[in-house]
Amino acid sequence: MTRFGKRDESLPDLMAEAATAALEDALIERPDGIVVAAMNPEEFTGEGNYGSLIATHLGLSHVPAIRVETATSSGMAAIYAGFAAVAAGLHRSVLVVGGEKMTHLATPRVSEIIGRSIDPHERSYGSTMPALAGLITRAAMQRRGLTPKEISSVAVKNHAHGARNPYAHFQTPVTLDAVMESRLVADPLRLYHCCPISDGAAAVVLSAERGPVRIAGIGQGMDTIAVRYRSDLTSFRATQEAAQAAYRMAGVGAERIDVAELHDAFSPFELISLEDTGLVPPGKAGRATLDGDTAVGGRLPVNPSGGLKARGHPLAGTGISQIVELCWQLRGMAAGRQVEARIGLAQSIGGLATNNWVTIVETSR
Amino acid sequence: MTRFGKRDESLPDLMAEAATAALEDALIERPDGIVVAAMNPEEFTGEGNYGSLIATHLGLSHVPAIRVETATSSGMAAIYAGFAAVAAGLHRSVLVVGGEKMTHLATPRVSEIIGRSIDPHERSYGSTMPALAGLITRAAMQRRGLTPKEISSVAVKNHAHGARNPYAHFQTPVTLDAVMESRLVADPLRLYHCCPISDGAAAVVLSAERGPVRIAGIGQGMDTIAVRYRSDLTSFRATQEAAQAAYRMAGVGAERIDVAELHDAFSPFELISLEDTGLVPPGKAGRATLDGDTAVGGRLPVNPSGGLKARGHPLAGTGISQIVELCWQLRGMAAGRQVEARIGLAQSIGGLATNNWVTIVETSR
Repeated sequence: MTRFGKRDESLPDLMAEAATAALEDALIERPDGIVVAAMNPEEFTGEGNYGSLIATHLGLSHVPAIRVETATSSGMAAIYAGFAAVAAGLHRSVLVVGGEKMTHLATPRVSEIIGRSIDPHERSYGSTMPALAGLITRAAMQRRGLTPKEISSVAVKNHAHGARNPYAHFQTPVTLDAVMESRLVADPLRLYHCCPISDGAAAVVLSAERGPVRIAGIGQGMDTIAVRYRSDLTSFRATQEAAQAAYRMAGVGAERIDVAELHDAFSPFELISLEDTGLVPPGKAGRATLDGDTAVGGRLPVNPSGGLKARGHPLAGTGISQIVELCWQLRGMAAGRQVEARIGLAQSIGGLATNNWVTIVETSR
Repeated sequence: MTRFGKRDESLPDLMAEAATAALEDALIERPDGIVVAAMNPEEFTGEGNYGSLIATHLGLSHVPAIRVETATSSGMAAIYAGFAAVAAGLHRSVLVVGGEKMTHLATPRVSEIIGRSIDPHERSYGSTMPALAGLITRAAMQRRGLTPKEISSVAVKNHAHGARNPYAHFQTPVTLDAVMESRLVADPLRLYHCCPISDGAAAVVLSAERGPVRIAGIGQGMDTIAVRYRSDLTSFRATQEAAQAAYRMAGVGAERIDVAELHDAFSPFELISLEDTGLVPPGKAGRATLDGDTAVGGRLPVNPSGGLKARGHPLAGTGISQIVELCWQLRGMAAGRQVEARIGLAQSIGGLATNNWVTIVETSR
């Protein structure tokens, strides 16, 4: 993966940097197929036909390429598409590369483009992604007893992790006070509860050959694009269903997970996701965070990369970067933030939890 | 599929019309998965997160959905993604639905959005899709001897077919004189050599169960997004490679094809594609067209639906509508334009022949 953050390179150049590193690591010069993930390169950068564009840019213009999109979880959907092509025997090896370039645009324009992922009717009343996340957070505080300190501790932890990750957008720690006193973005969410707008790209190579890490399970879960139709605001059915499907395919339960990368686009989402994936029992995510259980060095390290909050969130690059981090962790290549792990779990949220994914990877050692 | 043309319905409504018809035909209420094809719904309609949006709109909000995009061949790429998921055993049944809504926008804006599929450098010199197609047509006339009459005869034939297809955008015949005297769009291409801007959607259901028609082979081929890098302007390597892959998977050769749907976004492309797929020998496509070989009733009917020229071209709906037409032909459901066929071939072009697909379907009877 590239370093995430404010990058001057074009998105094709960022994707090429990540793809080249992945292909070199896999000792593959020419994959059988390419799956490209980009959420909205047309509006962010003016370019479309991204499968072909990236294949040509990589010098692989004759390698079959498609683009896959599921809003902010597009990267994980692309991994799924590559996984399916290999599992079906259609390809022996697939390069999956995803990313986004956004920081060159004004923030309101970025918000407008990201806002296309929201139900049109809810958007017509002024909903934005942070506004809906604020609504969910408020409900979680009232109905599940989440506290501002618990929520803020997620951001403190993930910034501490990001400070140890040379690929992270933010590599500086923040204090609990700084988080809790940062300005309101969407009450009760504050600036330091929200992931940044990041540029960057990440890539993995999937192969039918035995490699150092295998995909043990991959599951997708859905919910109504309209938040108002949901039976429960304070947990994400899409994550729960994705996790069940992934555990089933992998043949392991939550108790076997050693490390997790969760989609903390907003800090309370890490707490919700911890429980939706079954990694901690219902109602215990806040306590586990305050106790340091989810920090590097704790019982179940979560977001050792820094998560979306500190590593950054270049949309379609994010799900792939979660898998990159887990591969590094499982292979002992995460110097400075290394955890002990044989099995890792990544969870990616598409839109306002409309199209979520859980992927379980396992060391082959 | 919906009728193609200028439609007042929204794209989700068009997709729902097509999807509902396909699910009813397949006697499936709830597929295991959904693959949505739309080339650029964000800019055409303002909506994104299209997998989730369509799943919710279909009342299937808990069915896993992804979106797939390869420019103008997105529909066929979506069929491939669904095929891979079924072939890998990940799903037993997949609904594939694609379409586009464009006619509500001014033509220059539509051209701008479609133009994002062109190499950025070539676009910076003013290239548009019709301009590049005109360049290729000029080269094909000079180097391969294609004549204006041969090219125009493709449009005449396809309009005659469209006149028999109640789903076609244009259901009126045109004369050779009318085609040859229509106004220049991109010299030597004239208006009646170019497909229209259409709204519409199409859907198919893929199943692991035996159905009336099976996908015998599906192949993808690529070429550089930059036309200037290609060794040959007058044939499409992307089609040739896609055809070879599809024939290989199907275990049949071109001589076994009874009917074909080809991507005549510009009429000369049907002639080029006839030869690229091996359906007629090199240099013989023009003659075959003049002789009526490719008309309904001829030796090898091509585009009995009317093709992109007359059925219309709602971008991501087109590849799927080709398969719908072939299914109807193979099942004897194409009243008014029915041909005798057991094996059909569809060819779809993505961008300026950067990301092409050939799919071979066969009757199970």
